[in-house]
Amino acid sequence: MKLVLAVVQRQDAGELLESLTAHGHRVTRISSEGGFLHEGNVTLLIAVQDHQLETLLQDVREHCYTRTRYVSPLPPVAESGEFYPPSPVEVQVGGATVFVLRASDVARL
Amino acid sequence: MKLVLAVVQRQDAGELLESLTAHGHRVTRISSEGGFLHEGNVTLLIAVQDHQLETLLQDVREHCYTRTRYVSPLPPVAESGEFYPPSPVEVQVGGATVFVLRASDVARL
Amino acid sequence: MKLVLAVVQRQDAGELLESLTAHGHRVTRISSEGGFLHEGNVTLLIAVQDHQLETLLQDVREHCYTRTRYVSPLPPVAESGEFYPPSPVEVQVGGATVFVLRASDVARL
Ligand code: NI
Ligand code: NI
Ligand code: NI
Repeated sequence: MKLVLAVVQRQDAGELLESLTAHGHRVTRISSEGGFLHEGNVTLLIAVQDHQLETLLQDVREHCYTRTRYVSPLPPVAESGEFYPPSPVEVQVGGATVFVLRASDVARL
Repeated sequence: MKLVLAVVQRQDAGELLESLTAHGHRVTRISSEGGFLHEGNVTLLIAVQDHQLETLLQDVREHCYTRTRYVSPLPPVAESGEFYPPSPVEVQVGGATVFVLRASDVARL
Repeated sequence: MKLVLAVVQRQDAGELLESLTAHGHRVTRISSEGGFLHEGNVTLLIAVQDHQLETLLQDVREHCYTRTRYVSPLPPVAESGEFYPPSPVEVQVGGATVFVLRASDVARL
């Protein structure tokens, strides 16, 4: 038995949840945040049998893309009449971070 | 040492928390959601010694009931003047899902 | 590989996060609450290699202080014209609770 904690982007969560539910998983969703952009993400808790783990990870991979975003840093203070427009910074967002924990027991009471 | 994650219905959380606190447990509460009805629930984090686990599960069982709820699906679009009132759908709510994880260490700093 | 869940006071979270990020950690933050005062705290998820664990705990210790707070209980109902002003109750806040879990796998997808 494994407890999977999957931290996914908020924009990917809906589709992934539908897919996981369709595959018979019960999922607990926790609102979280992380990363350089302090963007909201979602932490999912899913209990799986050991033999279901690979299929689950496949499903996460399929629905959680990594995207490149361009972020404008704050405009610099113009010094001595000159103004340097800030160049956008490239940031990787999306994807997922998955923690797999051995659960000694999972009970539905 | 075990870390217990208990996902319980919001309506059961208050009483369970009182009971757990009365039994000397320190509990961290996280707002979460899950299930078919997207209802809010609460995820509790509780660290226990191995020998306290059974008593803890007993306490969760005692305070978290499974109930049957009837939910009205969205009314169907009336077609050609006819209207079929939706029949309520039966859904199990309540109860609890408990994950028991082996914690290699729990420190209060 | 370890998954560390650190429950820290909200007021300590900002500095700790800066420090953890500066040390190269990626941290997921979850809003939580706990304790006698029902104060908001923050639950952090951090994956570390086994050899990084001690440094991480050091960092938590350094940034999460235990403080003594004085809380006024609700004023008592004045009975028969007498009024006993409530004496403030001393409560320990701050510090951190850290759960260390063995993660069988951590994947960034
Ligand atoms: Ni799928
Ligand atoms: Ni009880
Ligand atoms: Ni530091």
